[in-house]
Amino acid sequence: MPRHKGDHEARRRDVSAAVWRVLAAHGFGGLTLRAVATEMGATTGLLTHYFPSKKDLVAHALTLLDEHRTATRKAGPEPGGLGALRATLLDILPSTPQAAADNRIWVSSWDAALADPDLAAGHAARYARSRERIRHHVREAQRLGELPSADADDLAASVLSFTLGLVVQALFSPQEFPPERQVRLLDGHLATLAAPAGGLPNGLR
Amino acid sequence: MPRHKGDHEARRRDVSAAVWRVLAAHGFGGLTLRAVATEMGATTGLLTHYFPSKKDLVAHALTLLDEHRTATRKAGPEPGGLGALRATLLDILPSTPQAAADNRIWVSSWDAALADPDLAAGHAARYARSRERIRHHVREAQRLGELPSADADDLAASVLSFTLGLVVQALFSPQEFPPERQVRLLDGHLATLAAPAGGLPNGLR
Repeated sequence: MPRHKGDHEARRRDVSAAVWRVLAAHGFGGLTLRAVATEMGATTGLLTHYFPSKKDLVAHALTLLDEHRTATRKAGPEPGGLGALRATLLDILPSTPQAAADNRIWVSSWDAALADPDLAAGHAARYARSRERIRHHVREAQRLGELPSADADDLAASVLSFTLGLVVQALFSPQEFPPERQVRLLDGHLATLAAPAGGLPNGLR
Repeated sequence: MPRHKGDHEARRRDVSAAVWRVLAAHGFGGLTLRAVATEMGATTGLLTHYFPSKKDLVAHALTLLDEHRTATRKAGPEPGGLGALRATLLDILPSTPQAAADNRIWVSSWDAALADPDLAAGHAARYARSRERIRHHVREAQRLGELPSADADDLAASVLSFTLGLVVQALFSPQEFPPERQVRLLDGHLATLAAPAGGLPNGLR
């Protein structure tokens, strides 16, 4: 029954949009069935038809975040190697108001995710994929001679560590970490990794 | 009236212990006046005498976390410079079950803190103090010639970024980030920063 199915999909999109607005306004701590129902002008009962529990709602919200991040990722021709690595990391940093708002939701999801094994597994898989993408760029940079040869897994984990921790600090102290300082710190970090033989690391000169 | 004051203090300690147990079991997402009251075998009404609102409760929990972290910080004679920096960062990493449990609570507090300007300001001040402590060790390491001269503020922010991001990844993927790998990544990061002139950074050899 296509028509019925179309209605169902349309309603799901309405629900998704309402979930997104609640997250943007209140973070995961404010994400409740009631809040989403109110946002939609619907009853909690209708909402439980789509999401039987709070956990289903949170899982859906995490999927929305994933889709949003993929959709907003800068497209265009990526240079290979270190340039692509830099672009990937810049894309994560909260260096625009929109990126800050997205990161705020993302960081606030860690509480809900850590409290539930299934959600935690989903997050673990997400970060594993991020490391894989980063590792790909690291290997290409090594092939091009832009990064010294070293364990690419460890390098990818280190680079993602640096980036996630910078996100957290910048969210709490935006005035201490304006966009230009975020970029400077990232470039300093990459220059340190790329330090040519025979001199001090660029980022430390 | 000392006796009354003593009772009040004793009760506050009971409440604090109950808050701690709720956090350890359910994270900040599970921290409600009702959960703490149940944990104490008390009424929500009694609890609101100490904490009029959920926000007061969360603020108290963050203070408890601070006290706990200060109390569990390894004492003993710290070597100056790079050794002290390494010890400070090792102290943060979730490299023991207890440190993992503490970090889990800490990371889960970010959701509540980001949703409230006052709590966010408290967290911003906490991380500023962390950077100050790290910067002190960085400066000492620079004085000793263990780290190249560079902007100590930026170095401290970078080192804390790396550490916080490693905490997050290790919490979600403990099997990929066992304690020995956490230490190896940290040592690799420090070796990169300390890279001597005339060779590749140690962490990248």
